[in-house]
Amino acid sequence: MYREQIKVLDCTVRDGGLINDHYFDDDFVRQVYKAISASGVDYMEIGYRCSKSIMSPDQFGKWKFCDEDEIKRAIEGIETRTKLSVMVDVGRVEKEDILPCKDSVVDMIRVATYVKDIDKAIELANEATAKGYETTINIMAISKALDNELDEALDQIERETKVLAVYIVDSFGALYSENVTYLVNKYKKYLKTKEVGIHGHNNQQLAYANTIQGIIDGCNYVDGTVFGIGRAAGNCPMELLIGFLKNPKFDLRPILDVITKEFLPLRQKIEWGYLIPYAITGMFNEHPRTAMALRKSEKKDNYLEFYESMSPAELD
Amino acid sequence: MYREQIKVLDCTVRDGGLINDHYFDDDFVRQVYKAISASGVDYMEIGYRCSKSIMSPDQFGKWKFCDEDEIKRAIEGIETRTKLSVMVDVGRVEKEDILPCKDSVVDMIRVATYVKDIDKAIELANEATAKGYETTINIMAISKALDNELDEALDQIERETKVLAVYIVDSFGALYSENVTYLVNKYKKYLKTKEVGIHGHNNQQLAYANTIQGIIDGCNYVDGTVFGIGRAAGNCPMELLIGFLKNPKFDLRPILDVITKEFLPLRQKIEWGYLIPYAITGMFNEHPRTAMALRKSEKKDNYLEFYESMSPAELD
Repeated sequence: MYREQIKVLDCTVRDGGLINDHYFDDDFVRQVYKAISASGVDYMEIGYRCSKSIMSPDQFGKWKFCDEDEIKRAIEGIETRTKLSVMVDVGRVEKEDILPCKDSVVDMIRVATYVKDIDKAIELANEATAKGYETTINIMAISKALDNELDEALDQIERETKVLAVYIVDSFGALYSENVTYLVNKYKKYLKTKEVGIHGHNNQQLAYANTIQGIIDGCNYVDGTVFGIGRAAGNCPMELLIGFLKNPKFDLRPILDVITKEFLPLRQKIEWGYLIPYAITGMFNEHPRTAMALRKSEKKDNYLEFYESMSPAELD
Repeated sequence: MYREQIKVLDCTVRDGGLINDHYFDDDFVRQVYKAISASGVDYMEIGYRCSKSIMSPDQFGKWKFCDEDEIKRAIEGIETRTKLSVMVDVGRVEKEDILPCKDSVVDMIRVATYVKDIDKAIELANEATAKGYETTINIMAISKALDNELDEALDQIERETKVLAVYIVDSFGALYSENVTYLVNKYKKYLKTKEVGIHGHNNQQLAYANTIQGIIDGCNYVDGTVFGIGRAAGNCPMELLIGFLKNPKFDLRPILDVITKEFLPLRQKIEWGYLIPYAITGMFNEHPRTAMALRKSEKKDNYLEFYESMSPAELD
């Protein structure tokens, strides 16, 4: 598949940070940035921009806050055409944490929101657009969005913002390909002047397949992470995505190399990827938090009991 | 997804046997049969029926040969509606190894073939049909089949056999969903009186997604294995497939339980599943044998070098 408009965004450090409270060491982030740059990926999302007045720096590593100086140190001297992105969560950032773009090394700000908070997301996106950033709005937990609320949100985003893209975020890894097609078509119906993006989770081994389906249906912004790192079952593996996209600007080799050197050792220390409890929460269209808690308990491999705990004693 | 005609076949012991030369112990096979039976899966393929005059019993475990007495011992006393299947490879079995069905515990014989050997496969399938078995023909390495040869083979199978189904076998894990759709439509064009089947390999994490795509396109015979066990990257995970199919006859719980009890310990001893070298052979549309050899070498995690070894020094 080759379509010039397709933009690939790597969110290895950002979504991966959800497993280790954003405590990646500087050299790891630098090696990822080097590999992503060399592979020709369009954007790298290096973390969250949270306000330190809202989230405590005692509880999270530096990539939860993405201070400009920290980013500069990580990327210094690396030749690149890859743009930098940070994610902001609605309710976790103050406007003053967003510098004018001309004073920042960040190129893009992606606003994460639930559909119910769309007005706050629009306000935040417009603030970032006004300060000179490229912007997107990423609608989380899309598999639980009520259809009428989603319609209204998309219509509002189209009319009230200048974001480049609006993302389908399958937070629970619950979508099947038919759902992807349904959602992309709905997004396209409302978003006449914006692109559609897709961000998958791999609970049911569908993150990559759903991303391909999104591309077939017309998504031009697609997310991946190196070796599929990300919360719980992780994300669409960048190595597969780059293997699929035929755009000559991409080079798979730096990604393969960084997997060997950085991700195999890391996987020995922190856990992500396809595991049965995450498959189960995906099937039930639930947040993986119960499965993540299970994996930290002594019952981490008691799959049958976990499955039964997800089924209510009675329907009410 | 619910369609009454869909038949699910478990080939855990058969395809899994390709990793350990078919040396599963009796209790493991019995526990798998018990779980598959309890889960309501339609067929279980318990191994290969090879001729001992062709393949040596000194070099392979018993599930390469599937003696009737061995099967009987494994399944004895287990209540079931699951039918039993064995696979025969063209060129690896003599006609006399196939008993009349009335004297066998086996219900179905699946004939594995490359497209070039289709005449031999038809002869073998007809022999098995005549002896009273349900039969299928499974066309291996479909991603390398020449289109005109495949057309001819499908036309011949339709005219010359009474097989129930003809399978698309993605031996190299190289197919994308669009290829699946293309192939299912081609099969359906020729096979007016037969069903289409699909058997995936998970090199690019697409075995399950491609199986769903096959179902959407009209496949009514679908293969899976418990915990995705199978050669190299393995197969479509049965736990995901049963989670997807809404037919009330299926019960996911026995499969989850047998994964905890039998497959987690087994996975400590033998390796299968998504690994970068298998992803690479899948992308190159090659047999995984070079990747399997790599995994047994000291260079097992040298992904970049392996990738470069797959690219020829020059195109000729």
